[in-house]
Amino acid sequence: MSLDELLARERAAVDAALERLLPPADAWPARLNEAVRYAVFAGGKRVRPVLARLAYAAAGGEPSEVAEAVCGLELIHTYSLVHDDLPALDDDVLRRGRPTVHVAFDEATAVLVGDALLTAGLEVLARNPEGDGWAARRARAVALVAAAAGAAGMVGGQMEDLEATGQVVSAAGGDPEERLERIHRHKTGCLLRASVELGAVLAGVGGDEQARFAAFGERLGLAFQVADDILDATATADELGKSPGKDEAAGKLTYVTLYGLDRARAKLAELETEMVALAAELEGGEGPLGLLAHYVCRRRS
Amino acid sequence: MSLDELLARERAAVDAALERLLPPADAWPARLNEAVRYAVFAGGKRVRPVLARLAYAAAGGEPSEVAEAVCGLELIHTYSLVHDDLPALDDDVLRRGRPTVHVAFDEATAVLVGDALLTAGLEVLARNPEGDGWAARRARAVALVAAAAGAAGMVGGQMEDLEATGQVVSAAGGDPEERLERIHRHKTGCLLRASVELGAVLAGVGGDEQARFAAFGERLGLAFQVADDILDATATADELGKSPGKDEAAGKLTYVTLYGLDRARAKLAELETEMVALAAELEGGEGPLGLLAHYVCRRRS
Repeated sequence: MSLDELLARERAAVDAALERLLPPADAWPARLNEAVRYAVFAGGKRVRPVLARLAYAAAGGEPSEVAEAVCGLELIHTYSLVHDDLPALDDDVLRRGRPTVHVAFDEATAVLVGDALLTAGLEVLARNPEGDGWAARRARAVALVAAAAGAAGMVGGQMEDLEATGQVVSAAGGDPEERLERIHRHKTGCLLRASVELGAVLAGVGGDEQARFAAFGERLGLAFQVADDILDATATADELGKSPGKDEAAGKLTYVTLYGLDRARAKLAELETEMVALAAELEGGEGPLGLLAHYVCRRRS
Repeated sequence: MSLDELLARERAAVDAALERLLPPADAWPARLNEAVRYAVFAGGKRVRPVLARLAYAAAGGEPSEVAEAVCGLELIHTYSLVHDDLPALDDDVLRRGRPTVHVAFDEATAVLVGDALLTAGLEVLARNPEGDGWAARRARAVALVAAAAGAAGMVGGQMEDLEATGQVVSAAGGDPEERLERIHRHKTGCLLRASVELGAVLAGVGGDEQARFAAFGERLGLAFQVADDILDATATADELGKSPGKDEAAGKLTYVTLYGLDRARAKLAELETEMVALAAELEGGEGPLGLLAHYVCRRRS
């Protein structure tokens, strides 16, 4: 099976599980459920749940056992996009080629959509897989993902990003390169790392082996952000499905604005090599995690 | 021990646990942690975690065993206040006598404070009490509280409240009395009911006995909202610590604007009687839950 076929199959499984998990658009409260579905079914690549499925498989499990659980990651990722797009934060009007939630609906609804998605994401992890035998893993899964998503993780990264761009007034500062690394590591890195780790945790893996999954996930998270920065600087709006060049216009710290395009590309190639080696260790040869490492570093949108 | 002494002791235990759980105000990301503490340590009455502690005691446990876990409720309650106060939602500038988070800090920070508190609230439930023997109860606790806080609960109630007041444009409608009941039951009722249920779930109670705790909690939640509506219509800003009379000015559906003050007060008295009877069943006589039922119905702020 080619990488494209593998990813298409995994994405389809994630989409089917999301469809099962989310209330119909006309269920009470209808405006909220309609907007939740608008946000979730927007053509996302489902990178995080797919990562968790592949990690679960690498740890010896059958991904269909955790089909629902891994969707918690996608709901949490989607909440973060909806809130980050708000006028008070990044003020984005276009996302994946469509109006953002606060534009298509309104700002109050967008705040509540994010709140509902975050809550649902952690609830999905607390409830799936069902059965008493899974209870301890479910509790570990919620703790792992919540830590990655919260103030010491993703939300903290977004806070420092807003401070670094001067969008909020702050006395915080420090070396720009360290600051960039810290923003990236938290804003997108933590949840991507946790996605890989979640697959291991759901498979009952702990200790050193869990740490190896985390190490792979951490590099993947950084690669994802460097690739994003490069795409923002080089892709067209059509390829990207959102407004490109916003980072430079907003004075954002990114790998490209700080180091230039050539060094950013070299960094990405280095990360790709490291990840492929790590994945080979975890999978005992060329497997889906290695293929995904290539994919993240070479994606065009 | 008098009710006031009991509540003061319980609140002090909750405050001490919150202090242990939250990062220091100067920990990274400092702006966020400072604002989180500003929101959490604002003189709140800690009704939800105190309720959970009293229910845990009524179910035969020693509240100190769940000191950290029940704080998850307070973090989630606080997140909902911070987001509800945002300019795009209720646009409140005063809360408990102090500027709201988006006024004291800024709007972007307030969005992130809410996100961080919601995430932390569910994480606290996923991690506490520690120990393998508690894992199944932790997973149940997260599922219970997330369901009460999410789209089918608190967030859904807030969505319909915004629709009912015309703050967001919506085709939704229906009988105003049914609508008011539905808004109340969800917006504040669900989390209060879940607070009582959480005490039972953490004590290992399920089935019919859990349902009796839930029935008490449901009435308490309704009483809390009716009392809130009465206070908004009758208290002074000084007593209330926030702007009074806002409900009527905003054209909100409340027990007072819909039924008038006398019928609202009669409803509250009826709920108090029912709750005291239920509490006596659960506690085998006059106990803390019965005292709390009196307290909620008679509070002045």
